[in-house]
Amino acid sequence: MASGEVASSATAKYLQIAADLAAQIKSGALAPGAIVPSEAELIQRYGVASGTVRKAVAELRTAQLIETYHGRGSFVRSRPPVQRKSADRFRRTHRQAGKAAYLAEAEASGGVPSVTVLFVGPTAAPPEIADRLGLPAGTQVLARKRRYFRDGVPTEEATSYLPWDVVKDIPEVFAENPGGGGIYARLEEHGHSLAEFTESVRARLATKPETKALTLSPGAPVIHLVRDAITTDGRVVEVCDTIMAADQFVLDYRFPARD
Amino acid sequence: MASGEVASSATAKYLQIAADLAAQIKSGALAPGAIVPSEAELIQRYGVASGTVRKAVAELRTAQLIETYHGRGSFVRSRPPVQRKSADRFRRTHRQAGKAAYLAEAEASGGVPSVTVLFVGPTAAPPEIADRLGLPAGTQVLARKRRYFRDGVPTEEATSYLPWDVVKDIPEVFAENPGGGGIYARLEEHGHSLAEFTESVRARLATKPETKALTLSPGAPVIHLVRDAITTDGRVVEVCDTIMAADQFVLDYRFPARD
Repeated sequence: MASGEVASSATAKYLQIAADLAAQIKSGALAPGAIVPSEAELIQRYGVASGTVRKAVAELRTAQLIETYHGRGSFVRSRPPVQRKSADRFRRTHRQAGKAAYLAEAEASGGVPSVTVLFVGPTAAPPEIADRLGLPAGTQVLARKRRYFRDGVPTEEATSYLPWDVVKDIPEVFAENPGGGGIYARLEEHGHSLAEFTESVRARLATKPETKALTLSPGAPVIHLVRDAITTDGRVVEVCDTIMAADQFVLDYRFPARD
Repeated sequence: MASGEVASSATAKYLQIAADLAAQIKSGALAPGAIVPSEAELIQRYGVASGTVRKAVAELRTAQLIETYHGRGSFVRSRPPVQRKSADRFRRTHRQAGKAAYLAEAEASGGVPSVTVLFVGPTAAPPEIADRLGLPAGTQVLARKRRYFRDGVPTEEATSYLPWDVVKDIPEVFAENPGGGGIYARLEEHGHSLAEFTESVRARLATKPETKALTLSPGAPVIHLVRDAITTDGRVVEVCDTIMAADQFVLDYRFPARD
């Protein structure tokens, strides 16, 4: 919901029409896949000029509620239920039950998850990552790059970076499948007991390679999330850099009203 | 940093050029406001075709590192340091010191903050808000809508919604300035002791009214953040709906690796 809705009496006509159509889509009166009434129909229905109708329809396109196909008209987008990401996905009990975070989370969202491992091997730490790991930029670290899918659609790409001295004695994390509970379970088995995670969340437009990797439309937004895994000794033993299709996720956080 | 950087040997030429120029911008070799070398200069420097150079420059524009002005060329954007938002901004000690959350946070970012109150008064709760407050959609609640600026530039709009039975005996929250520590301080003084906050984070393209309110370019992304303030009794006493210019903020969270 736009914060502009508070003072609706002062809202431009085209925005009122867009809001009316959006309400029909959200209520299901205009169902996923349904064709949006034509420009001529909307002109008649709302008694406005064609420019006003066109601006209203453009608003719905921006809100990703409809898709327009040249010569065929506009259609209500099928909106897959978004996947919620909460801090709970890193609960130790999930790891002990043998579930990696993504699977634990995707189970709750109703989609069928899958993962493709794109790369596992040594790489030079990029500046921001090195900084978070407390290493000079370019230091060799282990990179693990994966692409995640829901119902066969790519939704995010994540690259984990781990310090070499941490992983060199943990052969499982060099494998495509690091085993039950994922790399956090392996780190903890090898004495790197995790105390907390930090996440930094940004949003921006997708770059060309991201557009391709996640099959996004040009100009689509992504969420860029960087997570540090921190041990009880205060060491960052993993930085995970994730690019997510913005329309596929809601990130949920919970924190105390502390002193 | 794009996650596509891991396997750089397989990267298309135009992306290598874009990465090289981005590195110069990030290092300061190409300073804010500096003109980006012309197409002819880049063709000669990198020994590539004009189409390749044009794609590289388009990539930098998407990454919001440069701005192109017709007939004048491309310039390195002056990047105001982004404002970091951490859960710490809600510390009770900040409230007791008389600081509202935004001011506590903005102080750390180096910018000069200011606030305009756009609306304070009764409104019908929109569906998502009503749902979070545990009220039927359309129930009358108190809305407080503000626009926040940093160094005079609008960065976010936030609307707080509070249940009528909670606020009717707290005259201060009907005032433009609810006093030291903001509305959370007033709620706590009136017995609504806050236990925790939840935040839901999404990203999408700005709607037309948001583009106007925050003076964004068409097609710019926004972060949409919805926060619930929850009392020790488990009641949601405020929902705050915020639209933020995506290029102005980093949201920081911290959570335990709990069982």
